This record gives sequence, C-alpha cells and structure tokens, in this order.
Amino acid sequence: MRKTVIGVMGPREAKDADLKSAFELGRLIAKEGWILLSGGGNEGVMEAVNKGAKQEGGTTVGIIWLDHTLDTSDSVDIAIVSGMGSARNNINVLSSDVVVACGLGAGTASEIALALKARKPVVLLSQEELTKTFFKKLGKELVSPADTPHEAVEITKKLLSTKSHAGAGRAGL
Amino acid sequence: MRKTVIGVMGPREAKDADLKSAFELGRLIAKEGWILLSGGGNEGVMEAVNKGAKQEGGTTVGIIWLDHTLDTSDSVDIAIVSGMGSARNNINVLSSDVVVACGLGAGTASEIALALKARKPVVLLSQEELTKTFFKKLGKELVSPADTPHEAVEITKKLLSTKSHAGAGRAGL
Amino acid sequence: MRKTVIGVMGPREAKDADLKSAFELGRLIAKEGWILLSGGGNEGVMEAVNKGAKQEGGTTVGIIWLDHTLDTSDSVDIAIVSGMGSARNNINVLSSDVVVACGLGAGTASEIALALKARKPVVLLSQEELTKTFFKKLGKELVSPADTPHEAVEITKKLLSTKSHAGAGRAGL
Amino acid sequence: MRKTVIGVMGPREAKDADLKSAFELGRLIAKEGWILLSGGGNEGVMEAVNKGAKQEGGTTVGIIWLDHTLDTSDSVDIAIVSGMGSARNNINVLSSDVVVACGLGAGTASEIALALKARKPVVLLSQEELTKTFFKKLGKELVSPADTPHEAVEITKKLLSTKSHAGAGRAGL
Repeated sequence: MRKTVIGVMGPREAKDADLKSAFELGRLIAKEGWILLSGGGNEGVMEAVNKGAKQEGGTTVGIIWLDHTLDTSDSVDIAIVSGMGSARNNINVLSSDVVVACGLGAGTASEIALALKARKPVVLLSQEELTKTFFKKLGKELVSPADTPHEAVEITKKLLSTKSHAGAGRAGL
Repeated sequence: MRKTVIGVMGPREAKDADLKSAFELGRLIAKEGWILLSGGGNEGVMEAVNKGAKQEGGTTVGIIWLDHTLDTSDSVDIAIVSGMGSARNNINVLSSDVVVACGLGAGTASEIALALKARKPVVLLSQEELTKTFFKKLGKELVSPADTPHEAVEITKKLLSTKSHAGAGRAGL
Repeated sequence: MRKTVIGVMGPREAKDADLKSAFELGRLIAKEGWILLSGGGNEGVMEAVNKGAKQEGGTTVGIIWLDHTLDTSDSVDIAIVSGMGSARNNINVLSSDVVVACGLGAGTASEIALALKARKPVVLLSQEELTKTFFKKLGKELVSPADTPHEAVEITKKLLSTKSHAGAGRAGL
Repeated sequence: MRKTVIGVMGPREAKDADLKSAFELGRLIAKEGWILLSGGGNEGVMEAVNKGAKQEGGTTVGIIWLDHTLDTSDSVDIAIVSGMGSARNNINVLSSDVVVACGLGAGTASEIALALKARKPVVLLSQEELTKTFFKKLGKELVSPADTPHEAVEITKKLLSTKSHAGAGRAGL
C-alpha cells in the first residue's frame, strides 16, 4: 500500500526556465500517480512544482522547515511541519524514492549531497555543466542528468523499476 | 487545499483495549476525511490505528523514526523517513492539528508533553486517572480527556471548529 | 578522554526555590569535574544552573533550540546551535550520562519522557508528589527522586559508578 | 564567556594527504585556543583532526550522528549524541563560527552547502579545482580556498576578526 514518493528539490529564487520545468515536472509526476514531495515553500521551484501536480489532481506533501505553515504553498495537501530548518533537507531525501533537482541554490546542493550520502538516486534536471560534472564525480552511478521534465520522468521510471527488480527489502531507503 | 491532519500517538507495546480503541479511532478519523498521522510502526497502537483508517479508505502518513521502512506498517500510505529517532516525535505533534494519545509509553508521554509545549490541543483517550491529572495540570485547557474513540472524534471536531473560528493564520501550528 | 556529561533540564519560567536549587546544582556539578549540559537559555533554570557551574570554573555546554544564540546564557561556554526547536530535547538527553530535572514545564516533562525512552537514568530534584508518581510509574528503576542538589549529586555519582562497573561499551548511551 | 568554535568537516575515508592536513589543522586550532568541532567519528579526517587538537591540549566536541558513541573518536572530549544521522550536519555548521572542509565526500559536500545556506564562512582546504569552482560559484564571498592548514588558520583569524568588528549580535550564527 506504500505509495511511490518522488522528491523535487529546488530554490526559492529560481529562473523562469526552472519554474516552467518545475511546473511541468509536477504535472508529469502527478500523472504517474506518484506522490510529490518537496520543501513545501510558497515561492520558486517549490511553489511551481506543487501547482503543476495539483493541476493534474496529484497528492502533494511538503516538508516544512519552519514550525508553522505561514509560508507554505497553498498547493501543498499535507504539510509535515519539521520546525528544524535546513536539517529537514535530510528528511526530504530519505523519504523520496528518487530525488530530482530542478534549479540550484545552496539548499538544493545540500539536498543532492545528502541524497548521495544516503545512496539515493538523483536526477539533475537541466543543470549547468559545472553542476553535473561536480555531482557526477561525487555520486557516480547514482547521478543521472536529464534535459527535460519528460526525460527526468522516464529516467525516474527506470530507476524505480530497477529498484523493484532488485526486490529491495529496504524499500524506503 | 491543506488537509486536516490528526495525529494519533501510542506505544508499540499496548494493551488489547488500547489496540481496539486505536483501530476504531483510525476508522472514525478516515470517515471524517482527515489525514491520519502516526509514528508509522508495524506494531501496537501505530499498526492498529493505521489498519483502522485503511479499512475506511483513509489516507495514512507515518513519520518513521529510523532511516528505512523495514519496520513500517503496511497500512502506511506515505512514509516520511526521518532517520532521527525520538526527535521525530516533535515533528509528529507540529504536523498535527489535534493530537490524540491512545495508550501510554515513554514515547507517547514525550509526544503529549511536546504537543503542550507547542500549544497544540491534546485528547487523552481512555487514559488512567494519574495520567489525566498529571497532564491536565501541565497543559490546562489544552488537554481534553475522552472515554471512547467516538468521544475523542467529537472533541476533535469541536477543537478544529474553534480553531477555524479564530481564523488562525498560523493554521499549521 | 571522554568527559562525563550531566544534563540539567528545567523551565524558562521557574520558581525561586528551583532557581536557587539550579544554581547550587550547577556549582556541585562543576566541582565534580563533570561537564554541565543544558538547553542553554538565558532565563530560568537554564540561566541559573550555568551561572552556578561557572562560579566554580566548570565547563558548560548549551544545546540551543533556535538557529542563533541571541537568547543564549552568557554563562554557556560552548553553544551547540541546533536550530531545531524542541526536537533538540532528544539531543539533550542522548548526550547526558545522567539527566537531572529541576523545576517542571512542558519542555522539561518531554525531556524526562525522552530520557526514559532512551533508557537514561533520571534524577527528579524537588519535584511534586504527582510528578514523582507519574514518572516513577513510567520509568520505574530509571527514576530517582532527590530532595536537595547535594542528594541529586550523590545519586548521580552512584549511577555513574554502576554504569562503569557494568563496563558498558555503549558509554554514550 | 562564549568560546570560538571552528568546525572541521571531512570524510571517513580520506587520502593520506588529507589525514596529514587534518592532524596539523587540529593542532593549529588548539594552539589558537579555539574549540574544535567535528562529526566525531573514529576514522578518517574526523579522527585525525581530533588527535591533532588533543596533542596540543585543545578541547574537542563531536556531534555524533548515531544514538550512541561506539564509533566515536577517543580524542573527542565532549560527545553531543544527536541520533539523527546526516541531519546533524546542519548542527555542525550552525554551531561553527567558521567551517573548514578538509577532504571531500558526499557528507562533506552537504556540510559545505548547508554552511553556505546558513551564511557561514567556509574555508576549502587543499580542495580540487572542480570543488573550488563549484562552491565558489554557489557561495561567492563566503568561500575562501586555502592551500595549507597554516593558511586555513590565517584566513580563519581574519574571518573571525571581521565578524567581531561588525559587532554581530547574532554571534552564534
């Protein structure tokens, strides 16, 4: 009965292209029937990806960094209020079957690194060469670049099927 | 779009009466359309309340204390993997609009106390006199005793309506 | 080379008698050469116990709940800035060889309960009958009442020596 | 009375050159009278930097990721037992006045990114060009490269003096 959870990480201040990608990514995640998990903020990539998911009737979970929901996106269905600041970034990645990074800020970079530390697969969506080179060197086969939201979802499908083929008992990790 | 979240806290090792109450409480929470949040374990009150909620087709969220889901209840739909042990008890209460304690262990007692610290309303379901007296003294008007799952849900409804009457901007807290 | 760490837990708003006890307790802990660990706040029991310890030249560690030290006691030598609110209460108890509760608020009650959950010995200093009865029932042999700071320290010594006699490899727990 | 805390972050599996640097860095930090903070592990950079600091009689604090101290370095004086896995990386950086990264793994990368997110100055000691370029782009003026432990300490001194000249009330941040 456990639902597949896809985490999308991205900054509060984002470029237009990343916001557009995030919205489309949210839509596609919802269409697959996956739960969308994010940092839950009401700006930037977090707002856009949740809006996209809700447009398709998806279910959205936000792991909120503050101890209240005053700056949580209205498109978050279920707010998990951590009250622990950026330490919640580790919960974001531990709770996701696959992590997709869309846009980049210091918080996003920490989430990619924490995902690699926890041996989670990471999809780098439309990232710069420098970012891809750095994290590819750090995470090797755990890191997959993608050029479009559609490609990110196709890669995610493959990653999920590999995982279930392996019959991993440690499913949540 | 934010869903109402009711947290049910209770021990892994529980009395039969508490397990029966937890199952019934889970059923009633799901019937109200509320999200059930718990510690997500596959034993005791956590297992029972999630099973009850799923029998009525509810949505269940587990805040997992370990960094994997090997001992997570199969009746948990969405596993939030905290990997932070009992520190996750604070997330349980911050994320709940109302906290219901069913059965008692040291972990449950910490959750009641953390809820009171965060100024969250707490319903004490079928607790002993000593427990009720202790927490009533500590939390005063935040603490409501209930004798049955049905009464716990009626009290919860009242607490939720009071909250929305107040028009609290700090909805998640 | 590991130092013995004694955690003293108590509320920001405290009675005069508890403040006086906390100061004396801090003094005695420092005289034993133990590290004093507390929540690090600049009011109430936290402020008093740190002041007492510094009067005797002790070393004081504060586990700060906010993400800055603006309301940290000036008597804290080493500020561990958790930025995770009351979730840091679990770190307080996991890091202490023995936990002493002086005064009582919802936060303190959560720390006693979290200590019992982690199987840590707890000394209840000058607590009311209701508090002693409640936690004694919950924690059994882990809970020791004490009437004075001096008695609390004598009990702590015994608890520490029992522990080392057992030759516990899991010293920090 | 607050002591200056310098955080040194580095991987469990480290190159010989990094281990040698870490030991020397620990020595120099202790000689300055600063508290050394690290992840506290008994291998790699963590073990080496703590050993170096103890050789000069420094004070060492370890923020332990597990809920016990079985794999904590014997050279850690004060073990802060977080029990929260990599989420403790955020505590490492919030508690440090300056963060020095020596060697690189996924955990270390997350700590650099979390430091930048919290607006902490970061010294990159003997890092590869790729690492320096990536984090310099992400953190701009917060990031200072250093080629030797001695240079890292000189930069740290300057960073600390700038901070106190600014008279920052938010000292711990």
